Amino acid sequence: MIFDILTIFPDLLESPLNESIIRRAREAEKVTIRITNIRDFATDKHSMTDDRPFGGGEGMVMKPEPLTAALDSVASEKSKARVVLLSPQGRQYNQKIVEEFSHEEHLVLICGRYEGVDERFRAKSIDDEISIGDYILTGGELAAMILVDSVTRLLPGVLGCTDSAEKDTFSRQLLKHPQYTRPRNFEGEEVPEVLLSGDHKRIEEYRFLESVTRTLDRRPDLLAQEWFNKQEVTLLKKNKLYHKIRALQEEQ
Amino acid sequence: MIFDILTIFPDLLESPLNESIIRRAREAEKVTIRITNIRDFATDKHSMTDDRPFGGGEGMVMKPEPLTAALDSVASEKSKARVVLLSPQGRQYNQKIVEEFSHEEHLVLICGRYEGVDERFRAKSIDDEISIGDYILTGGELAAMILVDSVTRLLPGVLGCTDSAEKDTFSRQLLKHPQYTRPRNFEGEEVPEVLLSGDHKRIEEYRFLESVTRTLDRRPDLLAQEWFNKQEVTLLKKNKLYHKIRALQEEQ
Repeated sequence: MIFDILTIFPDLLESPLNESIIRRAREAEKVTIRITNIRDFATDKHSMTDDRPFGGGEGMVMKPEPLTAALDSVASEKSKARVVLLSPQGRQYNQKIVEEFSHEEHLVLICGRYEGVDERFRAKSIDDEISIGDYILTGGELAAMILVDSVTRLLPGVLGCTDSAEKDTFSRQLLKHPQYTRPRNFEGEEVPEVLLSGDHKRIEEYRFLESVTRTLDRRPDLLAQEWFNKQEVTLLKKNKLYHKIRALQEEQ
Repeated sequence: MIFDILTIFPDLLESPLNESIIRRAREAEKVTIRITNIRDFATDKHSMTDDRPFGGGEGMVMKPEPLTAALDSVASEKSKARVVLLSPQGRQYNQKIVEEFSHEEHLVLICGRYEGVDERFRAKSIDDEISIGDYILTGGELAAMILVDSVTRLLPGVLGCTDSAEKDTFSRQLLKHPQYTRPRNFEGEEVPEVLLSGDHKRIEEYRFLESVTRTLDRRPDLLAQEWFNKQEVTLLKKNKLYHKIRALQEEQ
């Protein structure tokens, strides 16, 4: 997998791309990450990459020519690159899109400044526009890093056995159950007895019910779309949770 | 405003906190950002900050003692610090929470690893648990940077006049209209005539309608909660958009 990141702040990306799992994935050549400074493709003498918006208004808009030239330098029109613009106007990023992206050969990530890119560049060159959430950032750089991190950890051979991509939140639409580690007694608080029982079926049921309860409490929107198997339905009924979930699903 | 960030990957945060608007805000002393390495507060001889989960399962859980000691080193129980855990189990971050946070004096951000922190630490020490989106990251570090960036740009005196926090997406629940800058003709594509007209009322109406159309198309969920004034309703009716919005709102 190749990532090309187009930005006017290349230095900003330095440390997150050289630490932890991303560093290891780069060293093991599971992933290639290249950074292109859009400013190197500016055409005027002041190396301007943005300019004021037509029609007035505050802020600056990224000019179409430097963006086009920078994009051309990393991906030809015939290449299989998927060109993604990070912007608050995009579709909402989620784990399904992460999985979709993890099957691409080449992703080009374009970091917009907040006031955005010229619409003609967007219309002509962008395959996909992604927003990582409903909040305003200074630029697309942090969003691009979120994308690189979330996709890289799904690539074959990237996660070690201590990392575990399998049972993560959002693979299934349930929040994770509480976790406990040593010591057994922390400031007078004990680890729940069931987790020390060694009874795997009981532990699994306990964790499932804790997940459901937590999701009901914090993110009912996720539960409304969740499907449960026969065994789970029995367990939910026994614990008086099933009617709450059905009510949520019927509201939809 | 003070941010304390607690992490086991302090180096990862280096470059994003020293570039662009965050760097300027730090230099102008609008914001203080301190990083604490949780590993410095490990109590055993191998400096372990995580351990296997009770009850079995993959991955590692962050131990409660180093987290507690690291937190105590930056905020006493009597201090006004608000302690925020970044985790996929949190409430969903959005611009309302950004604004809420921008009025705090002191935010302590705790970067969880994915398998999470020991539940007893969470129950005892965390004021707020935040998720930046429904996707899985290697750790909370990128999420913490998202939080620092989004909050810092709202602090008084941080944004210059070219940056503009005012009319941003999500201050109002509409996506931004398309933007255009020079050249007027880019590869045969012209800037829409209305933007060159100098007629501010027409420009504003055009942009408003483009915003609404784009939001209808991409993020109808945002429109369902939006309120429009009399003038806007008239304009929406004239352009046959009002009944679509009403239909969305009645579905709710």
